[in-house]
Amino acid sequence: MIDLLKVDSLEEAIEKLYSECVNNHFNVDIEEIDVKNSLGRVLAEDIVSKVNVPEFDRSTVDGYAVIAKDTEGANDTIPTFLNVVGESLMGLPCDISIKNGECVYVPTGGMLPKGANACVMIEYTENITDKKLAVYNSVAEGQSVIKKGDDVKEGAIVLSKGKRINAADMGFLSSVAVGKIKAYRKLNVTIISTGDELIDGDEKDTLGKIRDVNTNLLIGLSNKYNLNVINNFLLKDEEILLEKTISEAMTNSDVVVTSGGSSKGKKDASSVVIDRLTSSKVLTHGIAIKPGKPTITAYDNKTKTIVVGLPGHPVASAVLFKLIVVDTIRKLMGVKEKESVCEGTITENIPASPGRTTIQLVKIDDKFNIIPIYGRSGLIHTLSMADGFVKLELNQEGINKGEKVKMYYL
Amino acid sequence: MIDLLKVDSLEEAIEKLYSECVNNHFNVDIEEIDVKNSLGRVLAEDIVSKVNVPEFDRSTVDGYAVIAKDTEGANDTIPTFLNVVGESLMGLPCDISIKNGECVYVPTGGMLPKGANACVMIEYTENITDKKLAVYNSVAEGQSVIKKGDDVKEGAIVLSKGKRINAADMGFLSSVAVGKIKAYRKLNVTIISTGDELIDGDEKDTLGKIRDVNTNLLIGLSNKYNLNVINNFLLKDEEILLEKTISEAMTNSDVVVTSGGSSKGKKDASSVVIDRLTSSKVLTHGIAIKPGKPTITAYDNKTKTIVVGLPGHPVASAVLFKLIVVDTIRKLMGVKEKESVCEGTITENIPASPGRTTIQLVKIDDKFNIIPIYGRSGLIHTLSMADGFVKLELNQEGINKGEKVKMYYL
Repeated sequence: MIDLLKVDSLEEAIEKLYSECVNNHFNVDIEEIDVKNSLGRVLAEDIVSKVNVPEFDRSTVDGYAVIAKDTEGANDTIPTFLNVVGESLMGLPCDISIKNGECVYVPTGGMLPKGANACVMIEYTENITDKKLAVYNSVAEGQSVIKKGDDVKEGAIVLSKGKRINAADMGFLSSVAVGKIKAYRKLNVTIISTGDELIDGDEKDTLGKIRDVNTNLLIGLSNKYNLNVINNFLLKDEEILLEKTISEAMTNSDVVVTSGGSSKGKKDASSVVIDRLTSSKVLTHGIAIKPGKPTITAYDNKTKTIVVGLPGHPVASAVLFKLIVVDTIRKLMGVKEKESVCEGTITENIPASPGRTTIQLVKIDDKFNIIPIYGRSGLIHTLSMADGFVKLELNQEGINKGEKVKMYYL
Repeated sequence: MIDLLKVDSLEEAIEKLYSECVNNHFNVDIEEIDVKNSLGRVLAEDIVSKVNVPEFDRSTVDGYAVIAKDTEGANDTIPTFLNVVGESLMGLPCDISIKNGECVYVPTGGMLPKGANACVMIEYTENITDKKLAVYNSVAEGQSVIKKGDDVKEGAIVLSKGKRINAADMGFLSSVAVGKIKAYRKLNVTIISTGDELIDGDEKDTLGKIRDVNTNLLIGLSNKYNLNVINNFLLKDEEILLEKTISEAMTNSDVVVTSGGSSKGKKDASSVVIDRLTSSKVLTHGIAIKPGKPTITAYDNKTKTIVVGLPGHPVASAVLFKLIVVDTIRKLMGVKEKESVCEGTITENIPASPGRTTIQLVKIDDKFNIIPIYGRSGLIHTLSMADGFVKLELNQEGINKGEKVKMYYL
């Protein structure tokens, strides 16, 4: 029997599910993908630069590559004269060597000739003849030059395993000559909404029914968090039907998420079925969190599937999907990323719920005021108005009006 | 002739491009899409609720629907007795009417019988017989009931044109019986990197060359901002080749973005070609912004294409892509959304550039300190380390260490 009173803390629930997955080799498989298609994917390897960046000493100005010492004492009125012995062409190797008293024209980004250790901007020079240059400025060694490897050294780890790739990383990978990367594949998710009272969003003839909100809500969150929704179902609370659907979904999904049917007082088919279908049995039934208490987690070793039963309440189901499903997967992939958070000033007191993690939906204004959104249970409207949530930890005291708080974006 | 000295402010540049697009009917076409596929899309219509939410008076508890007045005076020790005249079944219409002295069992979410105006939680009742209930609590009218339309009224505008759809909206749309929405289609973008010195990210034999960073960087940003990259090219700075490529791209793209080849001192093929290919001619060549000055904008009425020439410098190209391309499209679609921003404390002085908008890359730490990232021109590494940027407006003074600043996520 499953004891509803034995609730886990949020951390315990995650830890149980995570350990079960790790001990039974949950597949966070790796695939090679093109950097062009890598936005939002998670690196499954450390990326080692294959090259020095830049790959050669180069000029940061349009001007002349010189030996710095040759320009000593040059100024506005007393130039130094140098012999122009060639030109470095953009995009081509430069085979010229210079000796004291010599210089070479170099464009911005162009390769320095051997022997040169600084560049003089063209604005500070004057061509006396094709071969003779007056230099009106003294430059120090290294001036207007980026040396080979200054930005990135060959062999250096430039991005670490667990990094979620953003657009800048995609450009950065190109700069270190990496065109393909090993990333964790996108996990496959099946979403099942259950409830005798539920109907599809646009069905007619609906007296007594409630429209199914969670399917589209959880599809949206899955898309946002880079999970691949392969199927979704809307089922009556019938144990046989539910068992058949979850069981089939487990054969081709990495994660099966049900919502509804897990709270006390309703027909509790989900927990019975999940218990029967998984090798771990129900790991957690009930989490000390508000809202979101009636949450079920389990893992099946044979099919390598995480099965999570979320509450039917849309706000609870969205928050627990993020905190249990998304965060456990992140932990399994070793994702190192900053949470998308913002700091602001809370505009009302938020009471804590003793012994429970408390989640309060909030919105944020232009002045970084964080405003709690209250709404009666089940009103999806409140979720649509929210920018994110504030989280009070298990043993944290309530938050007072005017305090600085951290908002997690939903 | 194009005068490089006549730079526009960022606002002028956007306004010129925006007006040209509006006056010449740039197509931000509308298509009907399924709510299931709508994450990140922009609404092209106001969404009107087709139903009341809830669609009937319903109970928020497991218990008995009553006439509130009948429970007056009931308490722990002195119950009121009511006749149980039926049960409201979950998911079905309830045809029962109750009169004074009668009650009906209703589950959470179940429909109230006619005549009832409150519910008593089952915990406060006792079944004396099948037909006789003792009520140990007095309830007020409306208690534990959500009335028809309490959350959303039929005919109300629930989401406005210009809203970018998030996961909560997807759920919310389901709750108001909307399964399909009109959204702006994803615009098609072609990305062209130019430069004699540029080579593909993973090419070998590269002395004197520079790896093309901007193609993958701009693909990443396009993906992030819901633009559809249909093609990308890496070209030498050859006018004929560039003209042919841009011209062909204009036939099937809504936006053609080039990068490189727009700055003074380099071969300036981009501006000449863009000027020749567009009905508007070059609208802006040079923006008072640092970095990012050598930016070109134009619009072609015949092909309905926005053409933007970005600087070759990756940081400048990323920032200007966001500020010109993304923000102009947002304006054309009338997108109403909060910028993704965060407030924090700047850890160093940031000097302003007189007469220019200044963009400073920054990162943010756990304590919401905002730390400027400096790097020599062209070092892509700096962009990969940044979380976002701080923006100093045209005539804004520098920011002092310790001030509160707004960071825009990149």
